[in-house]
Amino acid sequence: MTEFYPFITLGVALLALLYVAVTTRRVLRHSEGSERMSSLSRSIRAGASAFLKRQYTVVAVFFGGLFCVLGVLALTRLLNPFMPFAFLTGGVYSGLAGFIGMKIATSSNARTAHACQGSLNRGLRVAFSAGSVMGFTVVGLGLLDLSVWLILLKFVFHESVENIAATVITFGMGASSMALFARVGGGIFTKAADVGADLVGKVEAGIPEDDPRNPAVIADNVGDNVGDVAGMGADLYESYFGSLVSAVALGVAAFKGSADALKTRAAIVPLLLAGLGVLCSILGTFLVRTKENTNQKSLLSALRRGTNAAALGVAVLAFPLVRFVLGAGYTGVYGAVLAGLVAGVLIGLATEFFTSDSYKPTRTLASESETGSATVIIGGLGLGMLSTCVPIVIIVICILVAFFAAGGASSAAMGLYGIALAAVGMLSTLGITLATDAYGPIADNAGGIAEMAGLDHSVRERTDALDSLGNTTAATGKGFAIGSAALTALALIASYKDQIEQLAQKTGSSFTFDMGLMNPSVLAGLLLGACLPFVFAALTMQSVGRAAQSIVREVRRQFKEIAGIMEGKADPDYKTCVDLCTRASLREMVLPTVIAIAAPVAVGLLLGPNGVIGLLAGATATGFLMAVFMSNAGGAWDNAKKHIEGGAFGGKGSDCHKAAVVGDTVGDPFKDTSGPAINILIKLLSIVSIVFGSLVLSCHLL
Amino acid sequence: MTEFYPFITLGVALLALLYVAVTTRRVLRHSEGSERMSSLSRSIRAGASAFLKRQYTVVAVFFGGLFCVLGVLALTRLLNPFMPFAFLTGGVYSGLAGFIGMKIATSSNARTAHACQGSLNRGLRVAFSAGSVMGFTVVGLGLLDLSVWLILLKFVFHESVENIAATVITFGMGASSMALFARVGGGIFTKAADVGADLVGKVEAGIPEDDPRNPAVIADNVGDNVGDVAGMGADLYESYFGSLVSAVALGVAAFKGSADALKTRAAIVPLLLAGLGVLCSILGTFLVRTKENTNQKSLLSALRRGTNAAALGVAVLAFPLVRFVLGAGYTGVYGAVLAGLVAGVLIGLATEFFTSDSYKPTRTLASESETGSATVIIGGLGLGMLSTCVPIVIIVICILVAFFAAGGASSAAMGLYGIALAAVGMLSTLGITLATDAYGPIADNAGGIAEMAGLDHSVRERTDALDSLGNTTAATGKGFAIGSAALTALALIASYKDQIEQLAQKTGSSFTFDMGLMNPSVLAGLLLGACLPFVFAALTMQSVGRAAQSIVREVRRQFKEIAGIMEGKADPDYKTCVDLCTRASLREMVLPTVIAIAAPVAVGLLLGPNGVIGLLAGATATGFLMAVFMSNAGGAWDNAKKHIEGGAFGGKGSDCHKAAVVGDTVGDPFKDTSGPAINILIKLLSIVSIVFGSLVLSCHLL
Repeated sequence: MTEFYPFITLGVALLALLYVAVTTRRVLRHSEGSERMSSLSRSIRAGASAFLKRQYTVVAVFFGGLFCVLGVLALTRLLNPFMPFAFLTGGVYSGLAGFIGMKIATSSNARTAHACQGSLNRGLRVAFSAGSVMGFTVVGLGLLDLSVWLILLKFVFHESVENIAATVITFGMGASSMALFARVGGGIFTKAADVGADLVGKVEAGIPEDDPRNPAVIADNVGDNVGDVAGMGADLYESYFGSLVSAVALGVAAFKGSADALKTRAAIVPLLLAGLGVLCSILGTFLVRTKENTNQKSLLSALRRGTNAAALGVAVLAFPLVRFVLGAGYTGVYGAVLAGLVAGVLIGLATEFFTSDSYKPTRTLASESETGSATVIIGGLGLGMLSTCVPIVIIVICILVAFFAAGGASSAAMGLYGIALAAVGMLSTLGITLATDAYGPIADNAGGIAEMAGLDHSVRERTDALDSLGNTTAATGKGFAIGSAALTALALIASYKDQIEQLAQKTGSSFTFDMGLMNPSVLAGLLLGACLPFVFAALTMQSVGRAAQSIVREVRRQFKEIAGIMEGKADPDYKTCVDLCTRASLREMVLPTVIAIAAPVAVGLLLGPNGVIGLLAGATATGFLMAVFMSNAGGAWDNAKKHIEGGAFGGKGSDCHKAAVVGDTVGDPFKDTSGPAINILIKLLSIVSIVFGSLVLSCHLL
Repeated sequence: MTEFYPFITLGVALLALLYVAVTTRRVLRHSEGSERMSSLSRSIRAGASAFLKRQYTVVAVFFGGLFCVLGVLALTRLLNPFMPFAFLTGGVYSGLAGFIGMKIATSSNARTAHACQGSLNRGLRVAFSAGSVMGFTVVGLGLLDLSVWLILLKFVFHESVENIAATVITFGMGASSMALFARVGGGIFTKAADVGADLVGKVEAGIPEDDPRNPAVIADNVGDNVGDVAGMGADLYESYFGSLVSAVALGVAAFKGSADALKTRAAIVPLLLAGLGVLCSILGTFLVRTKENTNQKSLLSALRRGTNAAALGVAVLAFPLVRFVLGAGYTGVYGAVLAGLVAGVLIGLATEFFTSDSYKPTRTLASESETGSATVIIGGLGLGMLSTCVPIVIIVICILVAFFAAGGASSAAMGLYGIALAAVGMLSTLGITLATDAYGPIADNAGGIAEMAGLDHSVRERTDALDSLGNTTAATGKGFAIGSAALTALALIASYKDQIEQLAQKTGSSFTFDMGLMNPSVLAGLLLGACLPFVFAALTMQSVGRAAQSIVREVRRQFKEIAGIMEGKADPDYKTCVDLCTRASLREMVLPTVIAIAAPVAVGLLLGPNGVIGLLAGATATGFLMAVFMSNAGGAWDNAKKHIEGGAFGGKGSDCHKAAVVGDTVGDPFKDTSGPAINILIKLLSIVSIVFGSLVLSCHLL
C-alpha cells in the first residue's frame, strides 16, 4: 500500500490541474466587453508579459550560475548528483506558478469589469474563478513536482528515504530563490509605479486614481499583476512547497532507527494531507455561490462558507488519514495538524482585527489624521508593532501544542515533525484560501479598466466592493502566509540540525552541536541573523523609494513636454513608465537575493554550524515580527485611508484625507514589498544553509 | 592588599563627588543675566521640580509594593535578607542621579545663555561644566553605592563572595526600575510637549520655535530637563551600574573552585577599572579648553581631545592594573576591556556616519523631501533599519574577541566574564562622555531662554552652534549607551544561568539547563522575548501620540479663548500645559514598566528557566536592533531637517522643509522615548529574571 501513496498524490495533483484547465476555459468564455476594454487589457498583459520575460531572463542567469556552483559541489561529492537538477525544477515550477497566475489574471481583468456591468454577483464569479485558477495552479504544481520526484527517486533510482529527503530540500531552494526574485522584483515594480503614480497624479496634478491621463497608470496596473499576482503566486508556491519538504525530511528523521516502511509512511503523510486539502478545497469552491442581486455582506459569507467548509473537511478527515497511515500509536500527530489549522485561522482573525476599519485600532488610526500626517505615521507604526504580540502568542502556543501532541516529550524528533506538520495543516487548504486572496488584485485591475474605459460609475463601485472584500480575505491569507512561514522556518532549522548530524556521522567528522545560547558562536549568529530582516526590509524599501522617484521625474517630464495630456487631447507615453519600472526593479532585486543566499554560507564558514543555527533562529524571530509589523501597519494605513474616503473625518480631499494618504504611501512598500519578502527570506536562509551544509561542515573557522 | 581595594574605589567615588561639588560652585558663580532670563529659568526649574516630585511619588508607591514582594520572598528564604534593601538603595541612587542632573541643568540654562552673550567659548565652558557635574554625579554615585555595599557586606556582615555577588544584582534591579520610569515618564513628557508645541505652534499658527506666545513653550523646555537630562541621568546610572554588577557576579563565577582571594580580586577588577576611568575622565576634563574667539570646529576638537585622552589613559593603564590585580596568568582579560573600549568608539562613529548631515545617508534623506513627506518617512525608516548592520557587526566582533581573549576557549565562564568586562571598558570613561552628552540639552534650553527673553539674534546663533555640536557628541554617547546595553544584557543572561545553577545545587533541585535552540521552551521564550521590544516601542510611541494630542487640543483652546495671545498682549497659561504633560506621562509610564517586570516572571513560571533564557536572548537581540534603528532614524530625520534649515533644498519654510518637519516629528519619540527606553528594558528583564530566579526554579510548568 505504502508504495502507491505517491501515485495517489500524483493523481490529486493532476485533478487540481484539470480543475484549473476547466475553470480557465470557463473564464475565457466570458466577453472582454468593448474594444477599448479589450485593448487596455492587452496593454496590461503585454507589459506584464514583457516584465516577466525580462525578469525570468535575469533569474535564469542567476540560476545558471548557482546550478554550476551546486554542480561543482556535487562533483566533489559534497552534494548528491540529483540536487542541482532538483534545484532547477523547483525554480522552474515556482516561476511557472507565477506566470500562469499572471496570464489568467491579465486575461480576466476586462472580463471581470464587463461582468460587473451586469451585476456584482457575476463580477464575483469571474474574479473568483480566475483567483481559483491561481490557487489550484499553485497547489497542483507543488504536489505534482514533489510526487514525480518521489516516484522517480524511489522507483527509478531506488534511493534511500534519507537521500530522497535531502534531495527534496534542494528543490525547495530553487522554489524559494525564484519566489524571492518574484516577490522582490514584482514588489518593487508594483509599489514604485503605485507610489510614483499617486505622488504626481493624485497629489501634484490632482487627477483621480487610474485616470488615463496619468502616464504611469498602465505601469500601475501592470504592477498589480506582476507583484500582487505573479509575485504572490511564486511566493505561496514556495510556502506550500517549503512546508511539505521540511515535513518530509523531519518525518524521516523522526523515525530514525525504525523500519524503512515506517519512515516512508512518515515522509508521505504531509503529501497525503496536502492532497486531502486539495480535494476539500475543490469541494469548497462549489459552495461559493450567491443569489443574483446580492450585497457585499452575503458575498463575504459566500467566500467564508467555501474556506470554512474546506478547513472543516481537513480537520475532520485528517484524523482517519493519520491513523490509517501511521497507525494507532501516532494519532497524536493529528493534534499537531489541527493546531496548525486553528492557528492559521486565529492569526487571520487577528490580522483582520488590527487592519480592518470595522474595529477600533484602524478607526483610532484614522482619527489620528486630525493632527496631521506625523501622528498618522506614529500611530500606524505603533499599531503595527503592537499587533505583533497576538500572532506571536498564537504561534508560540501552536509550537508547544504541536511539539507535545506529536510526542515531543519522549522524542524531540517527533515533536519537531509535529511542528512541520502544523505548517502543512495550516497550508492544506491553500487552494481555496489563495483563490479568495488572488481575486482581489483582479478586481483592482478591473476597476482600473472600468475607470480608464470610462464605464458607468456603478461598475467602478462594484469593482471597488469586490476589491474591498478582497482586502478582508487577503488579511486572512496573509495570516496563513506569515504563520506558516514561521513554522516552516523552524521546521527547516530542525532539518538543518538533522542533516548536519547525518553528514557528520557519514563523513566521520568530530563535530557535535552545542546550540546553547551561551555559546558565543550561537550568540553571534543570533545577533547577525536578527539583523538580516532589518537590512532586507531597508534595502527593499529604499529600492521602492528610488524607483518611485525615477517614475515621479518621468511623469513630471511628460506632463511638461507632451502638450495636451491634461486636456485628454494627447496620449501619454505609457510604455516608458513601464520600461522604467521594469529596469529599476530588475536592477534592485539582485542585491537582496544575493544577501539572502550569501549570508548563511558566509556565517557558516566563519562561525560553523552552531553559528548558523543561531543565525537562522535570530532571523526567524525578527523576520516573523517584522513581517507582521510591516504587513499590519501597511494594511491599517490603507484601510484608515479608505475609512476616511468613505466619509469619515471630512472625507476625500480633506486635510485628514491628505494625512492618511501619506500613511498609505508609506504603507505600500511595507505591506506589498518588504513584509511578504521577509517571509520568503527566513525560509530561504534555512534552505541555503541545508544545501551548503556539507561545505560548511568540511571547513569552518570557529 | 585585596582587602583594601573597595576602600580605594570608595576614595575615587568621593573624589568624583568632590569634583562635582567644586564644579557646581563654579557654575553657580556665573550670572543668570537679566531678571527676565532668571525668571524664565525659575519657571522651568519649578516645572521640572514639580514633575520629578510627582513622578518620584508614583515611583515610591511602586517601589514600596515591590519591596514588600521581595520582603516576602526574603522571609520565605527565596532571597537573602539584604536584597530588598539593596533594591531600594539602587532605586534611590538612580533617582538621585537624575535629580541632581536636573537641578544643575535647570540652574545653568540661563547662565549658559548669559555666557553666550559674551562669547561662544564662554558659553561652552558653562554648559560643559554643568554637563560634567551630571557625568561625575552618575559615576560617583554608582561607585559609591557599590563600594559601600561591598565594604558593608564583607567587613560588617562577613558574607561570602557568592552572596555578595547575588546581592549587588538586586540593587541593579532598583536602579533599572527607577531608570525605566525616568526614561519612559520623562521621555513621554518631553516629546509630548515638543510634538504638541510644534504641531500647533510651528505648523498651524506659524510662529517660530520657543516663541513665548506658544502656551506649550515652557512645557517644552521643562521636558528637555526631565527627559533628556533627568531621564538620561537615571538611565546612564543604570547602564554604569548594570555593567559593574554583572561583571562582579561573573568574576566570582569565573573563578568558581579557586581560592576566595582570587574570586574577590576578580570581583573587584570591574570596580577598579571604573575607578581608573573616573580618574582619567577627570584629567580629561581639564583638556577641554579653547582660545577665545574660536569656531565650532575647534570646539568639537576640544571636546574630542578630552574624551580621547581619557579613553587612551584607560587603554594604557588598564593593562598594568589587570596584570597587578589578577596576576600574569590572566592578562588576556585586558584584551576584553580593550575590545569594549574600541567597540564603543566605533559604534559612536557609525552612529555619527548614519545621522550627521556631513555624510551621505542623511544628505540623501534630506533630498528625499523633494518628493514629499511620504518619501522622507520611507527613506528614514530604511536608513534606520539599514544602519543596524554596522553596530551589530561591531558588537559581534567585540563579543567574540572579548570571549576568546579572556580565555573562553578553555573556560566558558572566563569568556563570559570577558564579555562583562568589555561593557565595563566601554563605559569606563562615562564621566567625561556623559559630560559632552549632557551639555546638549542645557544649550538647547539656553537657546529657548535666549529666544523667549528676546536676546540678540547672535546669542541664539551661538546656543544653536553649541546645540548642534551637542548632537554630534550625543551620537557618540548613544553609541556607548546602546553598545554597553547589549553587552551588559548578555553578561546578565550569563549571570542568570550561573545563579540558577547555584540555586539548583543549593536546593537540591534536579533542574539542568538545556538552552539548545531546538528545545521548544527556548524557542517559545525566544519568540516572546523578541516581541517585547516591539510591544514596548509601540506602547511608548502611542503614549507620546496620545499625550501630544491632548497638548494640541489645549494649545488650540488657549489660542481661541485667551484674547491677545498672538499679539503678545496677553500671557498664555503655561502652567496648564506643564500639568497636562505631567499627568499624561505619569499615567502612561506605568504599563510599560509593569510589563517589563511581569513578563520574565510570567514566562518563567510557564516555561521554566530554559524559556527565560530564550526570552532574554530574544529580547536582547531585537532590543538592540530596535534601539539602533529608532535612535538612528530619529537622529537622521532631525539632522536632515536641520540640513534643510541650513539652506539646502529651499531652506526654512519651503515644501521640502515641511516634509522634513514631518520626519523630525515622527523621529522625536523614536530617538528620545522608545529607543533609549529599550536599552533599559533589555537589562531590566535579565535582572528581574535573576531576582525572581529562585521563585521560578521552585515552581514552573514546563
